[in-house]
Amino acid sequence: MSAEASVKSRQQPKWHVPAAQPVPVLKFQNSLTKTKTEFIPKQGRRVTWYNCGPTVYDASHMGHARTYLTMDIIRRVLEDYFKYDVLFVQNVTDIDDKIILRARQEYLFKELKKQVTELTPALVADAEQAWSEYAASKLKKLDATLVTLATSNWIEFSKKMTPEEIEKAILVEPKYKMTFTALDNAYKAIQTAKDNLTNGIKTKESAEQLIDASQDTLSTWLDARKGPEVNDPKVFRELPAFWEAKYFEDMEALNVRAPDVQTRVSEYVPEIIEFVQKIIANGYAYEVDGSVYFDTARYDGHNGHHYAKLEPWSKGDTELIEDGEGSLGSKLVGKKNASDFALWKTSKPGEPVWDSPWSQGRPGWHIECSVMAGAILGETMDIHSGGVDLAFPHHDNEIAQSEAHFGCNQWVNYFLHAGHLHVEGQKMSKSLKNFITIQEALETYTARQLRLFFLLHQWDAKMDFKKSRMHETVMLEQTMKNFFDNTKALLNKVQNDGSRGATDLPNGGITHRYRDAEKDLLNILQDKQDGVHAALCDSINTPKVMDEVMELVNYTNKYMTSAGAKNVNVHLLNKVAKWITSLMKIFGVADNGAEIGFGSVAGQSGNAEELLMPYLQTLSTFRDQVRIGARNKVEHTEFLKLCDDLRDNQLVELSVSLDDQEDGIALVKLVPREELIQAREKKLAIAAEKEAKKAAAAAERERKRLEKLEKGKLAPQDLFKTSGEFSKFDDAGFPTHTKDGEEITKSRKKKAQKEWDMQKKLHEEYLKEFGATA
Amino acid sequence: MSAEASVKSRQQPKWHVPAAQPVPVLKFQNSLTKTKTEFIPKQGRRVTWYNCGPTVYDASHMGHARTYLTMDIIRRVLEDYFKYDVLFVQNVTDIDDKIILRARQEYLFKELKKQVTELTPALVADAEQAWSEYAASKLKKLDATLVTLATSNWIEFSKKMTPEEIEKAILVEPKYKMTFTALDNAYKAIQTAKDNLTNGIKTKESAEQLIDASQDTLSTWLDARKGPEVNDPKVFRELPAFWEAKYFEDMEALNVRAPDVQTRVSEYVPEIIEFVQKIIANGYAYEVDGSVYFDTARYDGHNGHHYAKLEPWSKGDTELIEDGEGSLGSKLVGKKNASDFALWKTSKPGEPVWDSPWSQGRPGWHIECSVMAGAILGETMDIHSGGVDLAFPHHDNEIAQSEAHFGCNQWVNYFLHAGHLHVEGQKMSKSLKNFITIQEALETYTARQLRLFFLLHQWDAKMDFKKSRMHETVMLEQTMKNFFDNTKALLNKVQNDGSRGATDLPNGGITHRYRDAEKDLLNILQDKQDGVHAALCDSINTPKVMDEVMELVNYTNKYMTSAGAKNVNVHLLNKVAKWITSLMKIFGVADNGAEIGFGSVAGQSGNAEELLMPYLQTLSTFRDQVRIGARNKVEHTEFLKLCDDLRDNQLVELSVSLDDQEDGIALVKLVPREELIQAREKKLAIAAEKEAKKAAAAAERERKRLEKLEKGKLAPQDLFKTSGEFSKFDDAGFPTHTKDGEEITKSRKKKAQKEWDMQKKLHEEYLKEFGATA
Repeated sequence: MSAEASVKSRQQPKWHVPAAQPVPVLKFQNSLTKTKTEFIPKQGRRVTWYNCGPTVYDASHMGHARTYLTMDIIRRVLEDYFKYDVLFVQNVTDIDDKIILRARQEYLFKELKKQVTELTPALVADAEQAWSEYAASKLKKLDATLVTLATSNWIEFSKKMTPEEIEKAILVEPKYKMTFTALDNAYKAIQTAKDNLTNGIKTKESAEQLIDASQDTLSTWLDARKGPEVNDPKVFRELPAFWEAKYFEDMEALNVRAPDVQTRVSEYVPEIIEFVQKIIANGYAYEVDGSVYFDTARYDGHNGHHYAKLEPWSKGDTELIEDGEGSLGSKLVGKKNASDFALWKTSKPGEPVWDSPWSQGRPGWHIECSVMAGAILGETMDIHSGGVDLAFPHHDNEIAQSEAHFGCNQWVNYFLHAGHLHVEGQKMSKSLKNFITIQEALETYTARQLRLFFLLHQWDAKMDFKKSRMHETVMLEQTMKNFFDNTKALLNKVQNDGSRGATDLPNGGITHRYRDAEKDLLNILQDKQDGVHAALCDSINTPKVMDEVMELVNYTNKYMTSAGAKNVNVHLLNKVAKWITSLMKIFGVADNGAEIGFGSVAGQSGNAEELLMPYLQTLSTFRDQVRIGARNKVEHTEFLKLCDDLRDNQLVELSVSLDDQEDGIALVKLVPREELIQAREKKLAIAAEKEAKKAAAAAERERKRLEKLEKGKLAPQDLFKTSGEFSKFDDAGFPTHTKDGEEITKSRKKKAQKEWDMQKKLHEEYLKEFGATA
Repeated sequence: MSAEASVKSRQQPKWHVPAAQPVPVLKFQNSLTKTKTEFIPKQGRRVTWYNCGPTVYDASHMGHARTYLTMDIIRRVLEDYFKYDVLFVQNVTDIDDKIILRARQEYLFKELKKQVTELTPALVADAEQAWSEYAASKLKKLDATLVTLATSNWIEFSKKMTPEEIEKAILVEPKYKMTFTALDNAYKAIQTAKDNLTNGIKTKESAEQLIDASQDTLSTWLDARKGPEVNDPKVFRELPAFWEAKYFEDMEALNVRAPDVQTRVSEYVPEIIEFVQKIIANGYAYEVDGSVYFDTARYDGHNGHHYAKLEPWSKGDTELIEDGEGSLGSKLVGKKNASDFALWKTSKPGEPVWDSPWSQGRPGWHIECSVMAGAILGETMDIHSGGVDLAFPHHDNEIAQSEAHFGCNQWVNYFLHAGHLHVEGQKMSKSLKNFITIQEALETYTARQLRLFFLLHQWDAKMDFKKSRMHETVMLEQTMKNFFDNTKALLNKVQNDGSRGATDLPNGGITHRYRDAEKDLLNILQDKQDGVHAALCDSINTPKVMDEVMELVNYTNKYMTSAGAKNVNVHLLNKVAKWITSLMKIFGVADNGAEIGFGSVAGQSGNAEELLMPYLQTLSTFRDQVRIGARNKVEHTEFLKLCDDLRDNQLVELSVSLDDQEDGIALVKLVPREELIQAREKKLAIAAEKEAKKAAAAAERERKRLEKLEKGKLAPQDLFKTSGEFSKFDDAGFPTHTKDGEEITKSRKKKAQKEWDMQKKLHEEYLKEFGATA
């Protein structure tokens, strides 16, 4: 080998750059194009997003859920699946005509109720007056003869209004059903009140009954008369504050993530004024009588601007425009063009006010969102979203204002609109009385079921909230739950059999071999992973994702059945179940803490399940042993052994202390495992010490016994002969004389007798132990 | 406006595709280039990965943790941050020379201990012999005079071996410290045994003391003599099975994710044989005396192949090569080239065997990984990883084998090597007695602290596991904990103040205004998010990530202090704390269920105790009942009743389902209580129905019995008189003539006799039931 070749052979060879394979990229159904456009955020992985928040004057309903749950799902997918760093901004609208009107009416109604102490002819007359005015105003679109009949003879009119007639009337004015009910309730209450007066009943209760039943008619009547007198700002602050709190409670109940930045209109009035000033300065707005309007005619086509980018075909739709201007807008005259809209409204008496260069007034609706979005996100943003109802004029006006203000040509790059919600095939509306609040929906279904239902519908398509489809969703949830439960039970069983050493394979029969069955399941899993990615890239197509997931569930169920606890591959089954769980976590369907499954059981988190399982498994195993023992009729001591083993071994490992009591009822404690092991060792040591002491005492006793026996070796007749104390003895060996030859004294004799007797006894014991021969 | 302009103004204007900004892409420090190369998986978002698993013959130590924890962190980042669909394959090596040797020595040592009943001169002589042989063999690299001194006069030698001398010796041979200790212990035990023999002490204990102290010397000696006789396959299966289980326990304790696919060498021998056959067929391996070797000379440079792609400079490093060939390789002669390595080894007596075309033998070490990786991942893979010690020859040989087998030129696209682990500045080694098992490390530090320590070190750099640095890690953990605790406390306080309506702002003073302080913090957060992404793209630079995180923690602490509960922006603080938590979750440092913070550790938090207690109380009560029953020697059926009651009542209330199986091992599930109650009621209903059917059947039987008895009321002598068939009877009432006066026929008489007998039986039964008086 040449030196050069040798050097070369000591260098790393060329590495080949792997060929990249095309991967689907995320596209969004973009309302600005009505097509799916690739999602390209302005700043790398950062995504700025403004979502239109609620106008807070009443309970949130399923229509709100449609928007907020939908956007929550998309947001979670962007954050947790596509891993964008999303900045999600949402407002609370607490300055709005609907709020002002509702707050004023509620306030006036409550004040009336507070003042009334008894039923009076004047009160009844007011109620009747309110009723008539309400009827005349609300029914005016009906056939003229019908209107006359209604106001002159409500009983006759009611009879005429069969369900079919009402259906016909609703075609003219959707609110009629609600109107009829309000009028009918109030009418009946007035008749009752009249009867009461006739009968001399004037109690406070009877007055309150009349007032409560006439709330709709009286509120409108009171507001028309006394509305302008309501000027305490608190009135206009407390109502939205109450419903803002309720809104957040509802969102929490639906597991909707809180916005990253939450703005509130009433805290952004100075910014709104500045923003409007700039639009005026740029030539796109004008002031009339203290109000400021956006000049749509000047704007559209000027400097590259387009008015109504989202729905150019809706330009000039007077009904939509007027609806967008608010219910207190009757004084908004002086607009140059029907399409122009208010940026600032001068306030009439009975409407809240903020100082401005133009008037004591308040912001228009559309400007609020433009300003708050701009204040947080700057000149442009990646995503703006909201319900499809808001597309025109609200969102189109937002775009116009912002592009007029910033002088930019694409304020929003992606405009997402959540589709309509219908209920049992009909448009949901308070007027139709088919509207369902979020709280009502949550009485029938869990938040998880509602969310699964949303996942089963494409976010920008129409969604029909109907019982039959909800039932299917509940069944699907059950299928998934069964899958998770079976997976976990099987995994637990395999692990337990394993730790019990059920077979002769290493580690209790958990095989690590990959058979064709495992390879097939792995292939299916990988296909589904690719499929889910493609579906999510396809404008977050969650129905397709759920299809893929359910196919995988079905396939895995088959695998579990055919493999069984004996052959099932624990790692693979784990992988499948965890992947499905991870998707459910991303969608907000499963708890974050869940490893496998949805997580919460009886209000506890997924962590709880993981935490509980080892304890429950221990309980179950103990019970198994007791059952098997009972069936096999084992000795009763065996049961006691099981009980001790549970306390001293199984539960010690689980940091559970059982402290047996005299009455047989043990005390249960959670104590660190190390402490329990120490205590167990100490207990064993004490027992051992006790045993050792006992043994020592026994040895000592034995030693003494032997000593005693040793002493008894000597026969009593030899006792005195060996002591050297005596010199003479009688025939029995009893001493008679001392060693000095003197006869022993009486007392000594007596003592010697005692010694003799004692020795006799010892000697007899000795003989008994060792036999006469010893 | 022209008609055309009008149509145009009703169309959406052109949408501008946003300009994409360059974003860092993931690069890996690739051992195949020794540079950072962009990570391009072969198949879109799928990543195939093989990580070298443990050879299971002893406790896992921090060196193992270095590899497995490191790869776990990288895997989690790929899965949970970059959102790849990773397929992570890892083996367990349970066929290996180290395992064989250890298993045999442990087995022989245990057998010796079992057989010994007393201390004998022969045993002492064996121990001395073993000692001498061990000393001579292990110390041979020392100075010759020292060796002579050691074997002739250990006491003198020991005195000479001051710590300084030992340090010098270790420079020659790192294992000397361990060797000296083993020899010294054994020497002292032999002297004691000799004294014992002199004093007539021959107890079993004294024999065991000698054996235990001489384990190292005796094991080697026994193996040299009796090793070849060990042929029970169980010996070679049980040791790795034990350590495999311990390995998984260690990994679980370290919160290392289980592999997606776990393979075990002993389950892949047929695939190994096929693989080797193919290499031979491709001309890159040859057989010698039943063993098969890889032909490195033939391979290197042939057909575009390169040998030793990872470390071409290590080619021919005999020490590394021999080490790779295994400790039982002395008979591996006949290799064409010093670099050639064994694919298949013929087994000597005392080594486990598998059939093969070449010999009764076993696979070589390197081939095992190539085969298992190929069996699961196919011809090529994206990532292969392992400890840096394995780069040459193990991984280089794997590459050579696989490219020789598949005929490919880049079996692995990215080779990742976890850096070295040192302990207090020194290479960790069992020989140096500075080695720390994972269990030992976990006695001093929590798994979270160890993981944080790893995160603070670049995965492919050298890491020094030293106390001072661990102390810093513990402090950093505390800083993070304080941050999380303060954040949560502040958020709680604000929410509580809010619900108490502490200020006059809407909703109790939770301001929604974004001040400069919030904008600044948001900017810092976004910078850190970009910074973390860039760091992770930079070959998973976790130390840099931790720097960014700690800077954000410090900045946010300042924000909290200056804003205070009055002005702090709840949503923003939440966002920061949750983002940091989410990173800690991705790294496996925080619990999945944690919203903010590291999460709770089972058994420690008050919540866990609250959750567990009802279940534990149930367990304890059940045990109490079993104990009391056993003490009172109740019937065995009582125990079964207790078991049923636990399942059907106690546990139902706790949402726990026990599903009894035929094998007596129940399945445990957490199932909503309502479902369990429904199931129980259904079961009771079925049982009730069964009971009702049984009762009906009993009633029917009773009715038939009574019918029969009724029939028996008639005495046999009256039987024929009532029928009207006969006219005359004998004294006993037996018929003689028909109603027509004719004498009855013989056959009729016979039949009548039967009827008589039957009635007699029925009548007797009747009398027995109702008594003679009836």
